[in-house]
Amino acid sequence: MRIVDVREETMPISSPIRNAFIDFSKMTLSVVAVVTDVVRDGRPVVGYGFNSNGRYAQGAIIRERIIPRVLEADPESLLDPERDNIDPGRVWDAMMTNEKPGGHGERSVAVGTVDMAVWDAVAKIEQKPLFRLLAERFGGGDAANPKVFVYAAGGYYHPGKGVQGLTDEMRSYFDRGYSVVKAKIGGVPLADDLHRIEAVLDMLEPHQRLAVDANGRFDQATALEYAHALSAYDLFWYEEPVDPLDFEAQAAVAAVYDKSIATGENLFSMQDARNLIRYGGLRRETDWLQFDCALSYGLVEYLRTLDMLEENGWSRSRCIPHGGHQMSLSIAAGLGLGGNESYPDLFQPFGGFPDGVEVRDGFITMPEYPGIGFEGKADLFAVMRAIGEPSLATCS
Amino acid sequence: MRIVDVREETMPISSPIRNAFIDFSKMTLSVVAVVTDVVRDGRPVVGYGFNSNGRYAQGAIIRERIIPRVLEADPESLLDPERDNIDPGRVWDAMMTNEKPGGHGERSVAVGTVDMAVWDAVAKIEQKPLFRLLAERFGGGDAANPKVFVYAAGGYYHPGKGVQGLTDEMRSYFDRGYSVVKAKIGGVPLADDLHRIEAVLDMLEPHQRLAVDANGRFDQATALEYAHALSAYDLFWYEEPVDPLDFEAQAAVAAVYDKSIATGENLFSMQDARNLIRYGGLRRETDWLQFDCALSYGLVEYLRTLDMLEENGWSRSRCIPHGGHQMSLSIAAGLGLGGNESYPDLFQPFGGFPDGVEVRDGFITMPEYPGIGFEGKADLFAVMRAIGEPSLATCS
Repeated sequence: MRIVDVREETMPISSPIRNAFIDFSKMTLSVVAVVTDVVRDGRPVVGYGFNSNGRYAQGAIIRERIIPRVLEADPESLLDPERDNIDPGRVWDAMMTNEKPGGHGERSVAVGTVDMAVWDAVAKIEQKPLFRLLAERFGGGDAANPKVFVYAAGGYYHPGKGVQGLTDEMRSYFDRGYSVVKAKIGGVPLADDLHRIEAVLDMLEPHQRLAVDANGRFDQATALEYAHALSAYDLFWYEEPVDPLDFEAQAAVAAVYDKSIATGENLFSMQDARNLIRYGGLRRETDWLQFDCALSYGLVEYLRTLDMLEENGWSRSRCIPHGGHQMSLSIAAGLGLGGNESYPDLFQPFGGFPDGVEVRDGFITMPEYPGIGFEGKADLFAVMRAIGEPSLATCS
Repeated sequence: MRIVDVREETMPISSPIRNAFIDFSKMTLSVVAVVTDVVRDGRPVVGYGFNSNGRYAQGAIIRERIIPRVLEADPESLLDPERDNIDPGRVWDAMMTNEKPGGHGERSVAVGTVDMAVWDAVAKIEQKPLFRLLAERFGGGDAANPKVFVYAAGGYYHPGKGVQGLTDEMRSYFDRGYSVVKAKIGGVPLADDLHRIEAVLDMLEPHQRLAVDANGRFDQATALEYAHALSAYDLFWYEEPVDPLDFEAQAAVAAVYDKSIATGENLFSMQDARNLIRYGGLRRETDWLQFDCALSYGLVEYLRTLDMLEENGWSRSRCIPHGGHQMSLSIAAGLGLGGNESYPDLFQPFGGFPDGVEVRDGFITMPEYPGIGFEGKADLFAVMRAIGEPSLATCS
């Protein structure tokens, strides 16, 4: 049993949107296929992965550093000694050979993307959904729960979109079964943002909530100004008020804003996540953690982050990852996270759910596809299969 | 006045060495040329840069994200409104367009490498050494001091190198005029490392010192074990005992080791450096800071780091950067840093000093080349000119 090839292709996921920090018109991502010599149902097992939006494709690091290390490793050294399968932890160690500590960005995306494909392959080799495999291996006795909370992330700024455009957008998310929606803040002056927020709050039914996201744009004074203003509302959360590494400013916001804060999508290692927990002033019963394994060295590292959280008294249920991908859905269903982000109208075909999966009262139910479940999403799987199984893709 | 081209070439800087964490046999770097339409002495001004060792070349990020942003920017928007010159801060802002906050690695190297070349061009346009330009602009009234302390970094592990090999190596550094040398620790058991350290200490003359470097390998318990053992010696410093982002462990080491600690080479932004200052337990009068601008978004960001240090009561003289490149020599001479690393026998032709510059009593004296001074190092400049001025390179 061995990994016979790892392939990467860079693709655009451009969207005519912007948050408070960047616009997405030139955004790209990497799609990865990990091809094994294992045969299931008459076909070689191929695992797939991609990185979530916001941090660009990582083809060069994957091709120049990651792939050679995996393919040059003794195949035996990458196997799970207790199971007839590939060991994601050992593949991870191979990927990180000759990498210095610290500097967790870009490389973390490259490794996270390949790691996703490795886990997809491992679950397919066991012929079960990844979320069930994760519950068995790391669930601590808790069974998988295929019902996962999801919220609709949107509310971006773009040219010509007024308050009416924002409320129309949010209404369409509620119409599709979401109970929590999210809108960007910080791209316009505070008074204008409050006008946008109030317009959405005015349309909510009792079971519906709004979260807001500043994307790390504010300095401490502005973050506090927003905190005071937002305290007047019943928001689901106030996300990433300050620079993701300014834990002192983060703690200052938490000290004055007694409702929920969410952050962590721009921390890309267990060590960075640990610093947020140590220094960020977040509260175990109130706040939310959004670390995204696809950008952060994958699930192998995310398991270390979950262990760190447990050591610090945090429940896994406080984690609602960034990124809107099926990998985090699988982790949420398998390991009891609090839910997952979702971008109903963006980043297609990568984001979203398998075909036929609908949001009901803010939850989806995981279908039982082997692996992560990409095969259940036809538009996404067409893209993936062209990379991992091109002969099949051209015949289909 | 405008930047007409930015070019990158990836090159090996492989060496048969290893520190406690990685081996360098597959290490690469990026060389960058920033070509302007400014003519000085009858030739177009071309600025050069490269990234220091340890973090690999960044050609893809430079070509895919950085160069298009610089070349697509309105040339006027990159000029210094107060001087007839390019403005490195404005170029930096262009390079970082559509980049999210946090995740400071790889990208920080790509930007740092181009930034180095921009500063080289800016000083050449003013027809003065960069260190003199920096003193004028940012020296706060202090003149440049062309005498810069340098120490010899080596003492790596490699196959077949025994204690005799280590002491021979260190003797060769002292023979070349260095007063402080550095050896790796953490690649062998503590008792063996102490044997290596004592062998070097036994050969020191009174004005000579040894520093040791663990390259962030130790867990907290091992770092403390080493701290207690090393306390018996009069070492110049104990470098990077723990993971660069484990500030709690760093503070624990500082709490028991009352001699000098040095760290920071694996922190790649002002924000990461600030977290070390806030949480790492380092002492203003005792410890050393090794942030390397070539890996850390360049001098534009390093100036922000120096401002942050000043706000926290740290003197610039406590900074002795990692990397052994002439850019940090220029910053040290221009802005009063405590010195610079040097690798007398490694990473050639990139490391080291202009030809004819000798180390005397642990100091070098900067020659008066316009720019950073790469033109004064023939082997390095031959490599650079082949990228930036290929027609001249082939005629020479």
